[in-house]
Amino acid sequence: MSSTAGQVIRCKAAVAWEAGKPLVIEEVEVAPPQVDEVRIRILYTALCHTDVFFWEAKGQNPLFPRILGHEAGGIVESVGEGVKDLKPGDHVLPVFTGECGECAHCKSEESNLCDLLRINTDRGVMLSDGKSRFSINGKPIYHFLGTSSFSEYTVVHIGCVVKINPLAPLDKVCILSCGISTGLGATLNVAKPKKGSTVAVFGLGAVGLAAVEGARISGASRIIAKKFGVTEFVNPKDHKKPIQEVIADMTDGGVDRSLECTGNVEAMISAFECVHDGWGLAVIVGVPQKDAVFKTQPVNFLNGRTLKGTFFGNYKPRSDLPSVVEKYMNKELEVEKFITHQVPFAEINKAFEYMLKGEGLRCVIRLDEE
Amino acid sequence: MSSTAGQVIRCKAAVAWEAGKPLVIEEVEVAPPQVDEVRIRILYTALCHTDVFFWEAKGQNPLFPRILGHEAGGIVESVGEGVKDLKPGDHVLPVFTGECGECAHCKSEESNLCDLLRINTDRGVMLSDGKSRFSINGKPIYHFLGTSSFSEYTVVHIGCVVKINPLAPLDKVCILSCGISTGLGATLNVAKPKKGSTVAVFGLGAVGLAAVEGARISGASRIIAKKFGVTEFVNPKDHKKPIQEVIADMTDGGVDRSLECTGNVEAMISAFECVHDGWGLAVIVGVPQKDAVFKTQPVNFLNGRTLKGTFFGNYKPRSDLPSVVEKYMNKELEVEKFITHQVPFAEINKAFEYMLKGEGLRCVIRLDEE
Repeated sequence: MSSTAGQVIRCKAAVAWEAGKPLVIEEVEVAPPQVDEVRIRILYTALCHTDVFFWEAKGQNPLFPRILGHEAGGIVESVGEGVKDLKPGDHVLPVFTGECGECAHCKSEESNLCDLLRINTDRGVMLSDGKSRFSINGKPIYHFLGTSSFSEYTVVHIGCVVKINPLAPLDKVCILSCGISTGLGATLNVAKPKKGSTVAVFGLGAVGLAAVEGARISGASRIIAKKFGVTEFVNPKDHKKPIQEVIADMTDGGVDRSLECTGNVEAMISAFECVHDGWGLAVIVGVPQKDAVFKTQPVNFLNGRTLKGTFFGNYKPRSDLPSVVEKYMNKELEVEKFITHQVPFAEINKAFEYMLKGEGLRCVIRLDEE
Repeated sequence: MSSTAGQVIRCKAAVAWEAGKPLVIEEVEVAPPQVDEVRIRILYTALCHTDVFFWEAKGQNPLFPRILGHEAGGIVESVGEGVKDLKPGDHVLPVFTGECGECAHCKSEESNLCDLLRINTDRGVMLSDGKSRFSINGKPIYHFLGTSSFSEYTVVHIGCVVKINPLAPLDKVCILSCGISTGLGATLNVAKPKKGSTVAVFGLGAVGLAAVEGARISGASRIIAKKFGVTEFVNPKDHKKPIQEVIADMTDGGVDRSLECTGNVEAMISAFECVHDGWGLAVIVGVPQKDAVFKTQPVNFLNGRTLKGTFFGNYKPRSDLPSVVEKYMNKELEVEKFITHQVPFAEINKAFEYMLKGEGLRCVIRLDEE
């Protein structure tokens, strides 16, 4: 047991006080973990679009003050009552969606949408008692996605905590807890391209490029990636041609698999309609706007096309993420190329700037540095 | 070799002279089969909605005079040049879509949409020479779907001819060459419900009921069937409840699999949206109108639902239909229940009346009877 177990910890956290305003590093109190919860010392966290989306709070009910952050890696500091599978010192990834192990979804081989711990962007408190574990001078600060990793310490439900290989470098594998696994799993678990097949990826953010990485691992012969909103195709071999020509030249009637990683509904329609008839499968990964409507002629389905959606790459976090970490340890999966920036915790707002400017892919925020 | 091989055969055929007018039994000349063609003595043929659709010719270019008919069974009378896999006396089912065995679709395990012999409703002539094999006093009569089974003899491309077990009763298995296999295959090959799962079927024509038969064979625990346009549910156990109550009671959030067998785009949307999140799979079987648009919120996909279309139940006709016939021979598949009427060839127009009135499922027309 650590000396801090059962005690309130005072530590630094980056607090979002209001929508769109720079985060402020504050001293917060972090209460001890309750039943089925663990307190984690966060060492590294990355910034994902979802953090920025809820920080801007343009399309949803604003919930402030809040501690954002959900792509992270850390070490268990202490555990609450009833926790058996985790202990202080375990290296873990907190995840924004969970796995209770008991519900119909957890028991289904096909679903990862846990009834109990499915992503909930509106909840700012812990599930067990409806309270926050964060406070400043007694005033509660809201949680985000059950993870709130922009804090030196955070409290997370055990169903959202993935124990990983302690040899894995947390400053690298922290980014496997959201976007990279989402794109990678969409390809490996859902699209499942056969060796030698053609794969199109719409959207070249971290998720889209992770889908490309999945296609590479699968042995796809051709990976066609399109930056949405730009009327040109980009493929890994620096191929540049107009869309029609590239499709005609490269795929003989359509790609075998496509993945939509932008969230734009027009891209979803394109991704679906660009797959080959007879066997083509399109996978939707990007999160659409609430009022978006997917439209297509049903004959596109009848001609043997399939459209699937996926959430978090169909990975069940606790069961499956350790193996994704192992793929990195075995050098099967490349992770470093997704990390384009690193900043110390004190400069966390720089990570927001990089993302808003569209610079780079992932910025890792180092909480182990001042 | 039969004595008629290489000769023009004069026989009876039911000719559709113009849209919507009763067929007329005429004496026609049937030319000998050419390269890669066989001439078949049709013994039994059934009437399918597609025949009626093209006979009514309300939505497409009318092509008359024409010999309709495509669900049939018969015996090879003679074969054209280059035909090796079929010989006179073989029991066969002519099929409206083919399998060349050479194209990318035929070589794909996932597709049955043969590039060469895919269904073509506009073509009224043979592929090899662009001519008809039917004539009356030298005036050509158009083919339909490459099968034209409303004739005592017809000429069919070998890629559209399925050799079956000669012990199988042709007056029963003739209906396996279109609708029944379409519905059955949609369930067995595409929806693939697990034992004990819940299946909803939209549309209770022959195709829909064949999908139900597939669910029965798969061991589905609950089969919920909905007659489109009727605001009540019907299940095999004569369950009658309002839709919401039945869904809530029976499926705990949605069915595992659904099949849409009406062609109505609103039913397609319902069929998709009624499957369970996380793992639900909806299969579109019914042929939509040309201007129909499928619409849904993309989040329905993201929440782990899948939508697939299928053509002819994903069966490759020559490779797979013999095994469907064997399912019947092994008493695994029930066929008799789909045959609600039989008429002699001379009364073929009665079959149209039954279908237009919505009476029964399949009417088998016996060409072996006067």
